[in-house]
Amino acid sequence: MESKKVTVMQKLLKANDAIAAEIRGSLKAKKIFFINLMSSPGSGKTTLIEETVKRLGKKIKVIEGDIQTTLDAERLQKLGVQAFQINTGPFGGDCHLESAWIRAAIDELGMEDVDYLFVENIGNLVCPAEFDVGAHLNVLLISVTEGEDKPLKYPLAFQVSQLCLVTKTDFLPLKNFSLKKLRENIKKVNPACAVIEISAHSGSGLESWIEIVKNRPGIG
Amino acid sequence: MESKKVTVMQKLLKANDAIAAEIRGSLKAKKIFFINLMSSPGSGKTTLIEETVKRLGKKIKVIEGDIQTTLDAERLQKLGVQAFQINTGPFGGDCHLESAWIRAAIDELGMEDVDYLFVENIGNLVCPAEFDVGAHLNVLLISVTEGEDKPLKYPLAFQVSQLCLVTKTDFLPLKNFSLKKLRENIKKVNPACAVIEISAHSGSGLESWIEIVKNRPGIG
Repeated sequence: MESKKVTVMQKLLKANDAIAAEIRGSLKAKKIFFINLMSSPGSGKTTLIEETVKRLGKKIKVIEGDIQTTLDAERLQKLGVQAFQINTGPFGGDCHLESAWIRAAIDELGMEDVDYLFVENIGNLVCPAEFDVGAHLNVLLISVTEGEDKPLKYPLAFQVSQLCLVTKTDFLPLKNFSLKKLRENIKKVNPACAVIEISAHSGSGLESWIEIVKNRPGIG
Repeated sequence: MESKKVTVMQKLLKANDAIAAEIRGSLKAKKIFFINLMSSPGSGKTTLIEETVKRLGKKIKVIEGDIQTTLDAERLQKLGVQAFQINTGPFGGDCHLESAWIRAAIDELGMEDVDYLFVENIGNLVCPAEFDVGAHLNVLLISVTEGEDKPLKYPLAFQVSQLCLVTKTDFLPLKNFSLKKLRENIKKVNPACAVIEISAHSGSGLESWIEIVKNRPGIG
């Protein structure tokens, strides 16, 4: 039973990866930089997109993943950004986004006159890391209130990401939390991962983030 | 493909539910009260168990679920509590615990001279809610830093829980967060769910929590 489950999963992941590669290539050809944001629930993904839109302008489209509700898409539409909401609830409450759904959302949104595509993945530090969505940059958000041990406990999410944003730094200093240890733990599971500390409330660190987005690594 | 996936999932869940019911009955017969703790990563599950052990004494056993590391089991062993760590990493990093693994852990731990069994589920607000582990009380922890919209976005986790603990209330008041709205949102998705606000740091609300644990609802 267990080996059958693994085989089915491998087939699913292979199909997912093929579509992801196709998305990555097609958006690169159109000079659209695609960023996938992953994190636990409530680490600040939507707030980060809001702050990014304010600084980058309107040539951004966003695909929002949630099990239920269109709350996040509505927040972004208020800023004049076109946002498409994928609700996985009807599919049994799926805990991640798959590349085929991203492709369908891209077709629905249209990609004319767009410089940046953001995907806000389902709030989950486990499953989204297994499914490549075709992004040029995978970004993992972790808030300081979640604790310094998370990279060790959820290594895959940190390993598939090229950039880690440590969010909500306005809460620092915190009892039983060391930023230094968090950085060490990220390095242990993914030495190549860049780390930036940010606070959407104070604005601290957001310039460095915007700089990276504007540099469009891998796309130009 | 989609319908085949659903059929396989239904069979898996049915098998899981049968074992869960068996665990629930067997522990009830032994007068062992079984509590399943679920939440996002870093909402304070391990800290809550630590504070509970300090107040309830040592007739407690704990099953710790994590994808990787034995950090949480080690924290509890320091308090003199017997803790068994399930690491789902070898099974592809599974994002939840299943009842068959709980049964195996119970056999391994032994249940002589035990009053309480705690399971700390994988930090994930999505998948653990789909898998009954056989507990007498499902408890959902949500920290105030995660935001008031989470019950609407992840309703199943709140719907399968009889008690919701709002944690880290020492952070209050918070910008862009209303405790009243969080309570309203919990009520919307599960009107029967009891809600208690706690802070492990200040100790606030812990007495009410311990009272519920000692009352052993459904077991006596």
